[in-house]
Amino acid sequence: MPLGRDYDRQDCAPARALEVLGERWTLLVLRDCFFGVRRFGDLRAHLDIPRAVLADRLATLVDAGVLERRPYAPGRDEYVLTADGLDLWPALFTLARWSDRLRVGPGGGGRRFRHADCPAGGADLTTGGLCPACGTLPPATSLETRSLDPDEDDGSRPERDDAVSRALRHPHRLVTPLP
Amino acid sequence: MPLGRDYDRQDCAPARALEVLGERWTLLVLRDCFFGVRRFGDLRAHLDIPRAVLADRLATLVDAGVLERRPYAPGRDEYVLTADGLDLWPALFTLARWSDRLRVGPGGGGRRFRHADCPAGGADLTTGGLCPACGTLPPATSLETRSLDPDEDDGSRPERDDAVSRALRHPHRLVTPLP
Repeated sequence: MPLGRDYDRQDCAPARALEVLGERWTLLVLRDCFFGVRRFGDLRAHLDIPRAVLADRLATLVDAGVLERRPYAPGRDEYVLTADGLDLWPALFTLARWSDRLRVGPGGGGRRFRHADCPAGGADLTTGGLCPACGTLPPATSLETRSLDPDEDDGSRPERDDAVSRALRHPHRLVTPLP
Repeated sequence: MPLGRDYDRQDCAPARALEVLGERWTLLVLRDCFFGVRRFGDLRAHLDIPRAVLADRLATLVDAGVLERRPYAPGRDEYVLTADGLDLWPALFTLARWSDRLRVGPGGGGRRFRHADCPAGGADLTTGGLCPACGTLPPATSLETRSLDPDEDDGSRPERDDAVSRALRHPHRLVTPLP
Protein backbone atom coordinates (compact mmCIF):
# COMPACT_ATOMS: atom_id res chain seq x y z
CA MET A 1 0.00 0.00 0.00
CA PRO A 2 1.62 3.28 -1.04
CA LEU A 3 1.84 6.04 1.53
CA GLY A 4 0.13 9.19 0.33
CA ARG A 5 2.27 12.30 0.24
CA ASP A 6 0.04 14.25 2.59
CA TYR A 7 -0.85 11.69 5.28
CA ASP A 8 -4.41 12.62 4.36
CA ARG A 9 -6.12 10.86 7.18
CA GLN A 10 -3.90 12.29 9.89
CA ASP A 11 -4.51 15.57 11.66
CA CYS A 12 -0.94 15.76 12.80
CA ALA A 13 1.31 18.75 12.42
CA PRO A 14 4.62 16.84 12.70
CA ALA A 15 3.61 14.86 9.65
CA ARG A 16 3.34 18.03 7.61
CA ALA A 17 6.59 19.47 8.94
CA LEU A 18 8.33 16.27 7.97
CA GLU A 19 7.03 16.55 4.44
CA VAL A 20 9.44 19.45 4.20
CA LEU A 21 12.22 18.56 6.60
CA GLY A 22 12.31 14.78 6.46
CA GLU A 23 13.99 14.43 3.10
CA ARG A 24 17.57 13.38 3.29
CA TRP A 25 20.02 16.33 3.27
CA THR A 26 17.37 18.94 4.02
CA LEU A 27 18.35 19.51 7.65
CA LEU A 28 22.00 19.69 6.64
CA VAL A 29 21.20 22.39 4.11
CA LEU A 30 19.21 24.22 6.75
CA ARG A 31 22.02 23.96 9.30
CA ASP A 32 24.37 25.59 6.81
CA CYS A 33 21.86 28.40 6.23
CA PHE A 34 21.87 29.05 9.99
CA PHE A 35 25.67 29.13 9.86
CA GLY A 36 25.41 31.90 7.26
CA VAL A 37 26.04 29.96 4.07
CA ARG A 38 23.91 31.46 1.28
CA ARG A 39 25.31 30.41 -2.07
CA PHE A 40 24.78 27.27 -4.09
CA GLY A 41 28.49 26.72 -4.68
CA ASP A 42 29.37 27.09 -1.00
CA LEU A 43 26.63 24.71 0.07
CA ARG A 44 27.72 22.21 -2.51
CA ALA A 45 31.40 22.34 -1.54
CA HIS A 46 30.70 22.16 2.19
CA LEU A 47 28.08 19.41 2.06
CA ASP A 48 29.64 17.41 -0.73
CA ILE A 49 26.16 16.91 -2.11
CA PRO A 50 25.21 16.11 -5.71
CA ARG A 51 24.16 19.23 -7.64
CA ALA A 52 20.70 17.92 -8.57
CA VAL A 53 19.92 16.91 -4.99
CA LEU A 54 20.95 20.29 -3.62
CA ALA A 55 18.85 22.11 -6.26
CA ASP A 56 15.85 19.96 -5.36
CA ARG A 57 16.22 20.56 -1.60
CA LEU A 58 16.64 24.30 -2.02
CA ALA A 59 13.53 24.44 -4.23
CA THR A 60 11.54 22.53 -1.60
CA LEU A 61 12.68 24.86 1.18
CA VAL A 62 11.80 27.93 -0.91
CA ASP A 63 8.36 26.46 -1.71
CA ALA A 64 7.77 25.81 1.98
CA GLY A 65 8.58 29.40 2.88
CA VAL A 66 11.68 28.42 4.85
CA LEU A 67 14.19 30.05 2.49
CA GLU A 68 13.90 33.05 0.22
CA ARG A 69 15.78 33.26 -3.07
CA ARG A 70 17.37 36.68 -3.62
CA PRO A 71 19.51 38.03 -6.45
CA TYR A 72 22.89 39.32 -5.30
CA ALA A 73 24.43 39.89 -8.75
CA PRO A 74 23.10 39.72 -12.31
CA GLY A 75 21.99 36.13 -12.89
CA ARG A 76 23.11 34.99 -9.45
CA ASP A 77 20.90 34.21 -6.46
CA GLU A 78 21.49 33.44 -2.84
CA TYR A 79 19.28 31.66 -0.31
CA VAL A 80 18.33 33.42 2.92
CA LEU A 81 16.30 32.16 5.87
CA THR A 82 12.83 33.70 6.15
CA ALA A 83 11.21 34.57 9.48
CA ASP A 84 9.41 31.19 9.36
CA GLY A 85 12.71 29.46 8.67
CA LEU A 86 14.42 31.20 11.59
CA ASP A 87 11.70 29.84 13.88
CA LEU A 88 12.96 26.32 13.22
CA TRP A 89 16.13 27.00 15.19
CA PRO A 90 15.05 25.36 18.49
CA ALA A 91 14.06 22.16 16.68
CA LEU A 92 17.31 22.06 14.74
CA PHE A 93 19.35 22.71 17.87
CA THR A 94 17.50 20.03 19.86
CA LEU A 95 17.89 17.39 17.16
CA ALA A 96 21.59 18.16 16.78
CA ARG A 97 22.29 18.05 20.50
CA TRP A 98 20.28 14.88 20.92
CA SER A 99 22.08 12.95 18.22
CA ASP A 100 25.44 14.18 19.46
CA ARG A 101 24.72 12.86 22.90
CA LEU A 102 23.64 9.47 21.58
CA ARG A 103 26.85 9.25 19.64
CA VAL A 104 29.51 10.39 22.09
CA GLY A 105 27.81 10.63 25.48
CA PRO A 106 26.75 13.61 27.63
CA GLY A 107 28.62 16.84 26.97
CA GLY A 108 30.54 15.47 24.03
CA GLY A 109 30.54 16.21 20.34
CA GLY A 110 29.24 19.04 18.28
CA ARG A 111 29.78 22.75 18.25
CA ARG A 112 29.03 25.24 21.00
CA PHE A 113 26.37 27.95 20.69
CA ARG A 114 26.66 30.96 22.97
CA HIS A 115 24.03 33.62 23.65
CA ALA A 116 26.16 36.57 22.56
CA ASP A 117 23.44 39.21 23.12
CA CYS A 118 22.58 37.95 26.60
CA PRO A 119 21.75 40.68 29.15
CA ALA A 120 23.15 38.38 31.86
CA GLY A 121 26.57 37.94 30.27
CA GLY A 122 25.90 34.95 28.03
CA ALA A 123 26.48 31.23 28.29
CA ASP A 124 26.45 28.18 26.05
CA LEU A 125 22.95 26.97 25.22
CA THR A 126 21.63 23.93 27.06
CA THR A 127 18.76 21.53 26.46
CA GLY A 128 16.13 22.79 24.06
CA GLY A 129 18.19 25.85 23.15
CA LEU A 130 17.81 27.65 26.51
CA CYS A 131 20.38 30.18 27.66
CA PRO A 132 21.19 29.23 31.26
CA ALA A 133 22.38 32.75 32.09
CA CYS A 134 19.19 34.69 31.29
CA GLY A 135 16.70 31.80 31.15
CA THR A 136 15.29 32.71 27.73
CA LEU A 137 15.17 30.88 24.42
CA PRO A 138 17.29 33.19 22.26
CA PRO A 139 16.66 33.58 18.53
CA ALA A 140 19.36 32.23 16.23
CA THR A 141 20.41 35.76 15.27
CA SER A 142 21.60 36.47 18.81
CA LEU A 143 23.90 33.43 18.97
CA GLU A 144 27.56 32.86 18.23
CA THR A 145 28.86 29.42 17.30
CA ARG A 146 32.37 28.12 17.79
CA SER A 147 34.05 24.78 17.24
CA LEU A 148 35.11 22.67 20.19
CA ASP A 149 38.26 23.55 22.10
CA PRO A 150 41.10 21.17 21.20
CA ASP A 151 40.86 19.40 24.59
CA GLU A 152 37.14 18.78 24.08
CA ASP A 153 37.48 17.36 20.58
CA ASP A 154 37.27 13.58 20.50
CA GLY A 155 38.91 13.49 17.07
CA SER A 156 36.01 11.55 15.59
CA ARG A 157 35.17 14.16 12.96
CA PRO A 158 36.99 14.26 9.67
CA GLU A 159 38.80 17.54 8.99
CA ARG A 160 37.36 19.27 5.96
CA ASP A 161 39.04 22.00 4.01
CA ASP A 162 36.40 23.82 1.97
CA ALA A 163 35.86 27.57 2.47
CA VAL A 164 32.87 27.12 4.81
CA SER A 165 34.69 24.61 7.03
CA ARG A 166 37.68 26.95 7.28
CA ALA A 167 35.50 29.96 8.15
CA LEU A 168 33.68 27.97 10.84
CA ARG A 169 36.94 27.31 12.70
CA HIS A 170 36.54 30.83 14.07
CA PRO A 171 33.64 32.04 16.25
CA HIS A 172 30.81 33.25 14.04
CA ARG A 173 27.47 34.98 14.58
CA LEU A 174 24.66 32.73 13.31
CA VAL A 175 22.65 33.73 10.22
CA THR A 176 25.09 36.49 9.19
CA PRO A 177 26.96 35.65 5.98
CA LEU A 178 30.27 33.84 6.46
CA PRO A 179 33.40 35.81 5.47
CA MET B 1 24.87 8.72 -7.31
CA PRO B 2 23.36 6.90 -4.34
CA LEU B 3 23.38 8.67 -0.98
CA GLY B 4 25.18 6.66 1.68
CA ARG B 5 23.13 5.78 4.71
CA ASP B 6 25.50 7.45 7.15
CA TYR B 7 26.42 10.71 5.40
CA ASP B 8 29.98 9.51 5.95
CA ARG B 9 31.73 12.67 4.94
CA GLN B 10 29.61 14.95 7.11
CA ASP B 11 30.36 15.77 10.73
CA CYS B 12 26.85 16.92 11.34
CA ALA B 13 24.64 15.80 14.17
CA PRO B 14 21.29 16.63 12.50
CA ALA B 15 22.17 14.19 9.76
CA ARG B 16 22.46 11.39 12.28
CA ALA B 17 19.26 12.35 14.10
CA LEU B 18 17.44 12.30 10.80
CA GLU B 19 18.64 8.79 10.11
CA VAL B 20 16.27 7.85 12.91
CA LEU B 21 13.54 10.47 12.76
CA GLY B 22 13.35 11.33 9.07
CA GLU B 23 11.56 8.22 7.89
CA ARG B 24 7.97 8.77 7.02
CA TRP B 25 5.60 8.01 9.94
CA THR B 26 8.33 7.97 12.58
CA LEU B 27 7.46 11.34 14.13
CA LEU B 28 3.80 10.40 14.14
CA VAL B 29 4.58 7.22 16.03
CA LEU B 30 6.68 9.22 18.44
CA ARG B 31 3.96 11.82 18.94
CA ASP B 32 1.57 9.04 19.92
CA CYS B 33 4.11 7.68 22.40
CA PHE B 34 4.23 11.13 24.03
CA PHE B 35 0.43 11.07 24.20
CA GLY B 36 0.66 7.83 26.16
CA VAL B 37 -0.11 5.28 23.45
CA ARG B 38 1.97 2.16 24.11
CA ARG B 39 0.48 -0.78 22.23
CA PHE B 40 0.87 -1.89 18.66
CA GLY B 41 -2.88 -2.24 18.07
CA ASP B 42 -3.65 1.22 19.43
CA LEU B 43 -0.92 2.85 17.34
CA ARG B 44 -2.15 1.04 14.29
CA ALA B 45 -5.79 2.02 14.77
CA HIS B 46 -4.98 5.66 15.56
CA LEU B 47 -2.41 6.21 12.81
CA ASP B 48 -4.11 4.09 10.18
CA ILE B 49 -0.68 2.81 9.23
CA PRO B 50 0.17 -0.47 7.48
CA ARG B 51 1.20 -3.19 9.94
CA ALA B 52 4.62 -3.81 8.34
CA VAL B 53 5.47 -0.09 8.29
CA LEU B 54 4.55 0.31 11.96
CA ALA B 55 6.60 -2.74 12.94
CA ASP B 56 9.59 -1.37 11.03
CA ARG B 57 9.34 2.10 12.60
CA LEU B 58 9.00 0.71 16.12
CA ALA B 59 12.04 -1.51 15.58
CA THR B 60 14.07 1.48 14.37
CA LEU B 61 13.06 3.55 17.40
CA VAL B 62 13.94 0.70 19.76
CA ASP B 63 17.33 0.24 18.04
CA ALA B 64 18.02 3.96 18.38
CA GLY B 65 17.29 3.88 22.11
CA VAL B 66 14.24 6.12 21.78
CA LEU B 67 11.69 3.47 22.78
CA GLU B 68 11.99 0.48 25.07
CA ARG B 69 10.02 -2.70 24.45
CA ARG B 70 8.48 -4.10 27.65
CA PRO B 71 6.30 -7.15 28.26
CA TYR B 72 2.97 -6.29 29.90
CA ALA B 73 1.34 -9.73 29.59
CA PRO B 74 2.59 -13.16 28.45
CA GLY B 75 3.60 -12.80 24.81
CA ARG B 76 2.54 -9.15 24.65
CA ASP B 77 4.82 -6.11 24.62
CA GLU B 78 4.32 -2.41 24.85
CA TYR B 79 6.56 0.46 23.74
CA VAL B 80 7.64 3.06 26.26
CA LEU B 81 9.74 6.20 25.78
CA THR B 82 13.25 5.98 27.24
CA ALA B 83 14.99 8.93 28.92
CA ASP B 84 16.72 9.66 25.58
CA GLY B 85 13.35 9.53 23.82
CA LEU B 86 11.77 11.92 26.32
CA ASP B 87 14.53 14.44 25.55
CA LEU B 88 13.17 14.77 22.02
CA TRP B 89 10.07 16.57 23.29
CA PRO B 90 11.22 20.16 22.53
CA ALA B 91 12.08 19.23 18.93
CA LEU B 92 8.77 17.45 18.42
CA PHE B 93 6.84 20.36 19.94
CA THR B 94 8.69 22.94 17.83
CA LEU B 95 8.17 21.05 14.58
CA ALA B 96 4.48 20.57 15.32
CA ARG B 97 3.88 24.19 16.21
CA TRP B 98 5.84 25.38 13.23
CA SER B 99 3.94 23.33 10.69
CA ASP B 100 0.63 24.29 12.30
CA ARG B 101 1.42 27.94 11.91
CA LEU B 102 2.39 27.56 8.27
CA ARG B 103 -0.87 25.80 7.62
CA VAL B 104 -3.43 27.89 9.44
CA GLY B 105 -1.65 31.07 10.52
CA PRO B 106 -0.47 32.34 13.91
CA GLY B 107 -2.27 30.91 16.92
CA GLY B 108 -4.32 28.49 14.88
CA GLY B 109 -4.43 24.73 14.64
CA GLY B 110 -3.09 21.97 16.78
CA ARG B 111 -3.56 20.95 20.38
CA ARG B 112 -2.69 22.92 23.47
CA PHE B 113 0.02 21.83 25.93
CA ARG B 114 -0.14 23.24 29.45
CA HIS B 115 2.58 23.14 32.12
CA ALA B 116 0.47 21.33 34.73
CA ASP B 117 3.25 21.12 37.35
CA CYS B 118 4.19 24.79 37.05
CA PRO B 119 5.17 26.51 40.33
CA ALA B 120 3.78 29.76 38.87
CA GLY B 121 0.31 28.43 38.11
CA GLY B 122 0.87 27.05 34.61
CA ALA B 123 0.21 28.30 31.12
CA ASP B 124 0.11 26.96 27.58
CA LEU B 125 3.55 26.40 26.10
CA THR B 126 4.84 28.95 23.63
CA THR B 127 7.66 28.94 21.05
CA GLY B 128 10.25 26.23 21.57
CA GLY B 129 8.21 24.59 24.34
CA LEU B 130 8.74 27.33 26.94
CA CYS B 131 6.26 27.82 29.78
CA PRO B 132 5.55 31.58 29.84
CA ALA B 133 4.45 31.47 33.49
CA CYS B 134 7.65 30.10 35.05
CA GLY B 135 10.07 30.67 32.14
CA THR B 136 11.40 27.12 32.07
CA LEU B 137 11.39 24.41 29.42
CA PRO B 138 9.24 21.76 31.14
CA PRO B 139 9.78 18.05 30.50
CA ALA B 140 6.98 16.25 28.69
CA THR B 141 5.97 14.41 31.86
CA SER B 142 4.90 17.67 33.53
CA LEU B 143 2.55 18.67 30.69
CA GLU B 144 -1.13 18.21 30.05
CA THR B 145 -2.53 18.25 26.52
CA ARG B 146 -6.05 19.16 25.48
CA SER B 147 -7.83 19.55 22.17
CA LEU B 148 -8.83 22.98 20.96
CA ASP B 149 -11.90 24.66 22.37
CA PRO B 150 -14.82 24.50 19.91
CA ASP B 151 -14.51 28.23 19.09
CA GLU B 152 -10.82 27.80 18.25
CA ASP B 153 -11.29 24.84 15.95
CA ASP B 154 -11.15 25.76 12.28
CA GLY B 155 -12.91 22.52 11.32
CA SER B 156 -10.09 21.52 8.99
CA ARG B 157 -9.28 18.28 10.78
CA PRO B 158 -11.19 15.11 10.05
CA GLU B 159 -12.96 13.63 13.09
CA ARG B 160 -11.57 10.22 13.96
CA ASP B 161 -13.27 7.66 16.12
CA ASP B 162 -10.65 5.14 17.26
CA ALA B 163 -10.00 4.61 21.00
CA VAL B 164 -6.97 6.91 21.09
CA SER B 165 -8.77 9.76 19.32
CA ARG B 166 -11.69 9.44 21.73
CA ALA B 167 -9.44 9.43 24.79
CA LEU B 168 -7.58 12.50 23.55
CA ARG B 169 -10.78 14.56 23.49
CA HIS B 170 -10.27 14.95 27.25
CA PRO B 171 -7.28 16.64 28.90
CA HIS B 172 -4.49 14.13 29.40
CA ARG B 173 -1.11 14.12 31.11
CA LEU B 174 1.62 13.42 28.54
CA VAL B 175 3.54 10.15 28.63
CA THR B 176 1.14 8.47 31.08
CA PRO B 177 -0.85 5.63 29.45
CA LEU B 178 -4.17 6.65 27.95
CA PRO B 179 -7.27 5.23 29.66
